[in-house]
Amino acid sequence: MISVKLVSYTNDGEKVIAIAAKMSRSRKGWDYHEKDMTDDEIETWIRDAILHGYWSVLEHSVYTFSIEEISRVASHQLVRHRIASYTQMSHRFAKPIDEYYKPIIPPSAKKRSKELVEKAYKEAYDNYYTLLESGVPEEDARYVLPNGVNTNIVVTMNARELYNFFSLRLCSRAQWEIRAIAWKMLEEVKKVHPRLFKYTGPNCIIHENFIRNENESITLEDIFKDYKLEFISQRCIEGVLRDGIKKCIINSRSVLDNIK
Amino acid sequence: MISVKLVSYTNDGEKVIAIAAKMSRSRKGWDYHEKDMTDDEIETWIRDAILHGYWSVLEHSVYTFSIEEISRVASHQLVRHRIASYTQMSHRFAKPIDEYYKPIIPPSAKKRSKELVEKAYKEAYDNYYTLLESGVPEEDARYVLPNGVNTNIVVTMNARELYNFFSLRLCSRAQWEIRAIAWKMLEEVKKVHPRLFKYTGPNCIIHENFIRNENESITLEDIFKDYKLEFISQRCIEGVLRDGIKKCIINSRSVLDNIK
Amino acid sequence: MISVKLVSYTNDGEKVIAIAAKMSRSRKGWDYHEKDMTDDEIETWIRDAILHGYWSVLEHSVYTFSIEEISRVASHQLVRHRIASYTQMSHRFAKPIDEYYKPIIPPSAKKRSKELVEKAYKEAYDNYYTLLESGVPEEDARYVLPNGVNTNIVVTMNARELYNFFSLRLCSRAQWEIRAIAWKMLEEVKKVHPRLFKYTGPNCIIHENFIRNENESITLEDIFKDYKLEFISQRCIEGVLRDGIKKCIINSRSVLDNIK
Amino acid sequence: MISVKLVSYTNDGEKVIAIAAKMSRSRKGWDYHEKDMTDDEIETWIRDAILHGYWSVLEHSVYTFSIEEISRVASHQLVRHRIASYTQMSHRFAKPIDEYYKPIIPPSAKKRSKELVEKAYKEAYDNYYTLLESGVPEEDARYVLPNGVNTNIVVTMNARELYNFFSLRLCSRAQWEIRAIAWKMLEEVKKVHPRLFKYTGPNCIIHENFIRNENESITLEDIFKDYKLEFISQRCIEGVLRDGIKKCIINSRSVLDNIK
Repeated sequence: MISVKLVSYTNDGEKVIAIAAKMSRSRKGWDYHEKDMTDDEIETWIRDAILHGYWSVLEHSVYTFSIEEISRVASHQLVRHRIASYTQMSHRFAKPIDEYYKPIIPPSAKKRSKELVEKAYKEAYDNYYTLLESGVPEEDARYVLPNGVNTNIVVTMNARELYNFFSLRLCSRAQWEIRAIAWKMLEEVKKVHPRLFKYTGPNCIIHENFIRNENESITLEDIFKDYKLEFISQRCIEGVLRDGIKKCIINSRSVLDNIK
Repeated sequence: MISVKLVSYTNDGEKVIAIAAKMSRSRKGWDYHEKDMTDDEIETWIRDAILHGYWSVLEHSVYTFSIEEISRVASHQLVRHRIASYTQMSHRFAKPIDEYYKPIIPPSAKKRSKELVEKAYKEAYDNYYTLLESGVPEEDARYVLPNGVNTNIVVTMNARELYNFFSLRLCSRAQWEIRAIAWKMLEEVKKVHPRLFKYTGPNCIIHENFIRNENESITLEDIFKDYKLEFISQRCIEGVLRDGIKKCIINSRSVLDNIK
Repeated sequence: MISVKLVSYTNDGEKVIAIAAKMSRSRKGWDYHEKDMTDDEIETWIRDAILHGYWSVLEHSVYTFSIEEISRVASHQLVRHRIASYTQMSHRFAKPIDEYYKPIIPPSAKKRSKELVEKAYKEAYDNYYTLLESGVPEEDARYVLPNGVNTNIVVTMNARELYNFFSLRLCSRAQWEIRAIAWKMLEEVKKVHPRLFKYTGPNCIIHENFIRNENESITLEDIFKDYKLEFISQRCIEGVLRDGIKKCIINSRSVLDNIK
Repeated sequence: MISVKLVSYTNDGEKVIAIAAKMSRSRKGWDYHEKDMTDDEIETWIRDAILHGYWSVLEHSVYTFSIEEISRVASHQLVRHRIASYTQMSHRFAKPIDEYYKPIIPPSAKKRSKELVEKAYKEAYDNYYTLLESGVPEEDARYVLPNGVNTNIVVTMNARELYNFFSLRLCSRAQWEIRAIAWKMLEEVKKVHPRLFKYTGPNCIIHENFIRNENESITLEDIFKDYKLEFISQRCIEGVLRDGIKKCIINSRSVLDNIK
């Protein structure tokens, strides 16, 4: 259930971003900067770009994920992010039957309601199967499949769009499933480009860093380490008041525990 | 079932496009051209832009549709068109119950299979309702709603994107529902901007006009009027051979009869 | 010098946005909401969307400007905003000679340096003219035209992109010319859709409103009326410290005085 | 003069595209397909996508170029391609003086007119320098720099946008400089992904392949090898008649000889 794998990315993405940022201020060409760029410099150029909202340079580093066994509820939300590339398993051509029928059960459906969901999924499957057998084409039989039916999707986003995606989907207001996908995507990209995604977070973190003195910028890690951290923001963009923001972020990530 | 309404658009869109096109070749400003532009000139500038692929000027005319009572199968396909704006009825906030539950029945499901679909929809509804009653939140209960469940969506596209949308979705290879939506959208925009959408069509028409002598360009109307029309294309982009293209287009539009 | 004219726009844009926003929360269709929507409701839906960052609904209202007699320095910056449509006067086809040669003189070039700029423009013109006469094609002769040479451009942006454009280009860090264009565009759209653009401003205003209690949101008008207003932000995204922000905004708009 | 270097790209881009294409038709996940995918299969999936216009899968492979010592005439045209990412050397921050002033001389300016261009560039430089010395800020002094002044720009495009970019800019109607850039970009990407860019070409090639029987598809290489090749298209989209198309393509690429 819900698998997120980073299958390809710009290997030298952090360096590419730093060189591009530097070239915008310099008269010298790529080769010159590539030779000289130190790791410290890379970190500085990236940090500076993010904390001042020079997002465009982040577009030069790109990430491809294979996101599998998610519901079509989640995929429908996912593809609303328009600055990205998608290739989705099509139920017009690939029938989700037998072991390939693995509809997603929401964690909120516990005990008796879990049984209800499972019953509903079983009935939908039977109806789908009967329709196929009665000669209804696959593309039409799928109308009776549940919204929760599983799908796979290949997604390519650049680092700028990922920052935007994370700002919206790491937020506790996002539905649990796309939120779980977002937290998993974050884990993946942080492994390969920790400097680039250091300041990622839901909108509350992003906006807080835009209005905070630069030497006091905060990260998601600070939230989980230091429960004392004080926000300057009076509210987050969704309306959560200052004192509730940290708890809200912690609550948001707990979705990962619920889907284990 | 499936309602498409043009609710707002650039009233003077054809003229705006023609003036913009003319300004790209002229040193004079908007006011000068606006005063002088005749209806004939508007037609000439638009025709010239389309038949030579100068699509960018078409972006200055914009259309907003309210598309109602379509399935989430169709809306999921629709929002894959990224150069457009969408606002969709959310099943997180609006429960499709009682008279608002009107799932779409594919025309291919006839007689016995129609009963099967209706039974499936009824079962799904009952399961959904029971889940809501047992306290599962709306955003999760909807996982058992069928893919065919009805939704409403407000869509804004400019004329260039509409040409692209039509080239893909008026084609018989598009699923019947989004195809029906596309043919209905075409009817709407042709009413208000006939000169602008004169050369619209599925890809077979678009490509044929790109490679055909200009004084022999063809339109969808020619297809439905004159069954004798000869294509130069050996095949359409989807692989239909020359002799089958006209019939294929006629077949594509017949979806409008099936959903009456 | 620098003329900005709103030549077309979604006349009922504010209402379209409000209805779309409402429909996302409702099971009812367009007609129902259109009949009932009051002016107060329009204002509420728009304000709510902006202060909570639900930007997508703002895309349904679209604006076309004719921006004339600006430099190619400015047009090069302008077209970097990718979520917009452009049609520009082409110096490949339209020669900027005689009365059509009106290169832009930066206000910073005063007295003696103004004469210098004028001399430079005169020399460039003579060289351009001589090249044309010697048979060099227009598209190549223009290589010797100055960056400051005048151009006209038709620009279409939706309200969401305008908010983004304004956040960057109303800022005092933007170059004076594109800043002047932005302030003039703001004047134009405020005339026709005052409720929609009430909360527009450079990033300092936008971000301040995202982190401020909702009943204390601020507008550009407050800045110019009430010099006492206190920011909560410690700094703006560009690094201007809290106490300097108001002055910075006032300074930014003063570009309009310099170009009269 | 005019240097184009591919500085980063999706190393396994061809495989990523093929797997994504296959996953859209399959119920199996990434790992399964990655293990099994043969080189022949990669070629087939890519070829099939391109010849049938399934462009979206091509977006998963991305290319970053450093394009150096081009004119601001060319960069202004380049950034009009909106589905791409740009970071450009800014003349607001980096002064093009001394050895960094290398304005581009159009090949059409021969002998006496070449001297004229050089004189014009020299005068512009002197004026620019004097303005800087008189205290005019860099961002304003540059108004007197020539349009031909050199700039560097980092560009990231995916393979789909590259196909679109090439279709427009490899065409003989494109200005010589951006055309030279396009032909050089093509050389770069063909070196690393020959299968992916096999069917690239100006619009005449692209459209010809859309309407031609699949087993008779043509490539740019065919044009340069086999002068006997017959087009089915009566005209190219720009209006060149059937018999002139091949010569027109050959002529277009000859720009590479002129800029050596």
